[in-house]
Amino acid sequence: MTPSAAALRSRHLLGIAGMEPDEIELVLETTLAMKEVATRSVKKVPTLRGRTVVNLFFEASTRTRLSFELAEKRLSADTLGVTTAGSSVVKGETLADTARTLEAMAPDMIVIRHASSGAPQMLARTCRASIINAGDGTHEHPTQALLDAFTIREHKGRLAGLRVAIVGDLLHSRVLRSNALLLTRMGVTVCACGPPALLPLGLDRLGIQTTSSVDAALDGADVVMMLRVQHERMHGLFLPSLREYFVQFGLTAERLQRAAPDVIVMHPGPMNRGVEIDSEVADGPWSVILDQVSNGVAVRMAVLYLLAGESEDK
Amino acid sequence: MTPSAAALRSRHLLGIAGMEPDEIELVLETTLAMKEVATRSVKKVPTLRGRTVVNLFFEASTRTRLSFELAEKRLSADTLGVTTAGSSVVKGETLADTARTLEAMAPDMIVIRHASSGAPQMLARTCRASIINAGDGTHEHPTQALLDAFTIREHKGRLAGLRVAIVGDLLHSRVLRSNALLLTRMGVTVCACGPPALLPLGLDRLGIQTTSSVDAALDGADVVMMLRVQHERMHGLFLPSLREYFVQFGLTAERLQRAAPDVIVMHPGPMNRGVEIDSEVADGPWSVILDQVSNGVAVRMAVLYLLAGESEDK
Amino acid sequence: MTPSAAALRSRHLLGIAGMEPDEIELVLETTLAMKEVATRSVKKVPTLRGRTVVNLFFEASTRTRLSFELAEKRLSADTLGVTTAGSSVVKGETLADTARTLEAMAPDMIVIRHASSGAPQMLARTCRASIINAGDGTHEHPTQALLDAFTIREHKGRLAGLRVAIVGDLLHSRVLRSNALLLTRMGVTVCACGPPALLPLGLDRLGIQTTSSVDAALDGADVVMMLRVQHERMHGLFLPSLREYFVQFGLTAERLQRAAPDVIVMHPGPMNRGVEIDSEVADGPWSVILDQVSNGVAVRMAVLYLLAGESEDK
Repeated sequence: MTPSAAALRSRHLLGIAGMEPDEIELVLETTLAMKEVATRSVKKVPTLRGRTVVNLFFEASTRTRLSFELAEKRLSADTLGVTTAGSSVVKGETLADTARTLEAMAPDMIVIRHASSGAPQMLARTCRASIINAGDGTHEHPTQALLDAFTIREHKGRLAGLRVAIVGDLLHSRVLRSNALLLTRMGVTVCACGPPALLPLGLDRLGIQTTSSVDAALDGADVVMMLRVQHERMHGLFLPSLREYFVQFGLTAERLQRAAPDVIVMHPGPMNRGVEIDSEVADGPWSVILDQVSNGVAVRMAVLYLLAGESEDK
Repeated sequence: MTPSAAALRSRHLLGIAGMEPDEIELVLETTLAMKEVATRSVKKVPTLRGRTVVNLFFEASTRTRLSFELAEKRLSADTLGVTTAGSSVVKGETLADTARTLEAMAPDMIVIRHASSGAPQMLARTCRASIINAGDGTHEHPTQALLDAFTIREHKGRLAGLRVAIVGDLLHSRVLRSNALLLTRMGVTVCACGPPALLPLGLDRLGIQTTSSVDAALDGADVVMMLRVQHERMHGLFLPSLREYFVQFGLTAERLQRAAPDVIVMHPGPMNRGVEIDSEVADGPWSVILDQVSNGVAVRMAVLYLLAGESEDK
Repeated sequence: MTPSAAALRSRHLLGIAGMEPDEIELVLETTLAMKEVATRSVKKVPTLRGRTVVNLFFEASTRTRLSFELAEKRLSADTLGVTTAGSSVVKGETLADTARTLEAMAPDMIVIRHASSGAPQMLARTCRASIINAGDGTHEHPTQALLDAFTIREHKGRLAGLRVAIVGDLLHSRVLRSNALLLTRMGVTVCACGPPALLPLGLDRLGIQTTSSVDAALDGADVVMMLRVQHERMHGLFLPSLREYFVQFGLTAERLQRAAPDVIVMHPGPMNRGVEIDSEVADGPWSVILDQVSNGVAVRMAVLYLLAGESEDK
């Protein structure tokens, strides 16, 4: 097992791409401590008292926004929210000017979700505040990969040596990208599977295998991660129909029999039942989907805690 | 007078239907104590410090949402908000999955307003959190009925033996339903009045009288509760015109002369002046409409306080 | 220099029109103290602990809303937000009834932005809460003028005797109006410049000069304030095209050479680069635009602090 780093090397969390294995280890170790807080009747620690976190959500999201906001409040931070509706974005201000304006207000941390890949990097170049990427375009979603890794280790006791199948819309998935980067870095074998039209070029550069056969991907898998079919991004271009998708790629109990006997099933949510996953699987004994949600709050607390510590000395 | 219960029997407040008279009494007694907090210059007590309340408002609402959020903040709770715009609802997640996801994040309480009758019950089956119904479809709106009862007793000194007229759109009204349940349970005689096309079947099962004559309903009434004409739900189907509605059912000073000399007039807001109520009445000496608003915050504080106490032992 | 008042005379901040020079001085002095808080690692003071501030934003705004909310949180107030989307406004309630309803909930302060000139005055007539105008129609935007004055003095060491040019859409600008009132009151010479079709009648009554020649306005100016071209308010009626606007009124480095050698350039944001201001100027050495943003938080803290102090005795 990789020993933990003493601290994160960057004051931002922009992606898994910039993280060394010992830093990933540090986040996972810290998450364990944070998870304990959620078991108390008063689920609150004073760690970030007096710090201000701005949550910039330029894409619709309930679960990720709530998860971050809960994490921030459990650490006693002050939180402010900006969503696209009713924001200056409507008035045509550039993201660069929004970044400079925020910086001038001196928040301590900014959590950003944005439809454009690279938006968090742009903020990080402008702001002294710590920037946390909560999903940017088709690029990265690092806290999702960290909570997935934490959940896998919680159930399997380890990461190295495992075999993980990631199935779904690979083309649009920042979840795939961040998970592929993290898991390969931690010694996991990753096999990604999706419709041929949704297989992006260059996946091999991430050090993972790809296939269009679900059966091949599931074969002997210790973990199956299903990706969300993003109706809203596809405009009917790539898929014949949702029904057809389910027939070819949907995860059913029958298909799961090819996987390892103690396989676990994951999904970043929100699920499209009957499209990428059958309800029998989503609600079945293999599913750790709700553990992912719980661990999401703890992972985000860990990230906020570690970056806040950083921001004072760097 | 019914003696108060020592505690609420359920850890949820889903409707008046599940409450015994002694529990109603307990809420009303507790409200009296909470109301005192609003008179202080620092209107805040540490009762719910470190507790998290999620406010899920799937229907537009300002006054109820603000009232709950103020109540939560006056009790020092941490509050998070989800409204329909920008939520996963858009992404097609089922309410059941939203409920499980919320549960996995372990909030202490969830306040929910939803267009579907029964949505809070569904949450209550899934979540360990205490669920508070802030209005579900045409079913119930229990905190409204509790604040109405508190306001009546504040002005009349009692509930039992009073005569209450409820006038308006009876078909779509959860306010009517919760009030009818509560008031009859506390010994009040209730007469509901509305246009024939908006008289739902089965009102008699609630133990109340019904009529389409405003004059008959107002006759000797100690309290007149006006219901909001819900333009947005009617699509012009049931009513000839708003002007016509006012002529037939609008509350005017002239009509009020049929009521008891010390009658009080109530309205859950927001009012349609000149539709269901004349401005002379809304702003006149009979009106206790703004007392209802003030008492709303105190009643919600009482409910939050009582359920929070419960949630630790049950 | 005008000596500071001991306290503000009104418990509201409705406009610059109601303020005496010594009160303006008091806000600017208090801002200096508040600005220091933002330099601490824990940027928070307990001044407004237990006080509730409702932020009513009936017009889209990110920067002003965030600035107020940050100011409130740095003073430890509890904050609640209402925006037009999802509010009772949709249900047709009058602003007068919204005001009465809010008053009945007993918040300590209300910050309001509204498209109708006079909306804050209306709230002030109804509510015991302190009302702060965050921009009403084409009337006033007093905290903007106060932060502008603070920023000018920070850079120039004084206000009296300076020459300020205000350039842009004078017809729709509450920023112009509040600045003209404040600056003339403090001994500044103000020259306003805009397209002839956007020159409102009666500007001379504000005691300022007007011109349609940018060169004349800039001549010897110590400060140039650019106003935002409000696309959304103009519907193509007044301006031939945005490109044409830039050619005639856009602020370029070349045009700036007519101003004083140490001229500073201001803009209330969000900027339309290439319309009212060239990027070379917006990002150049003359620009104090981001200082305005930083000072905005401190000025709003000062106003909240001073009004809160007032609200106890008056």
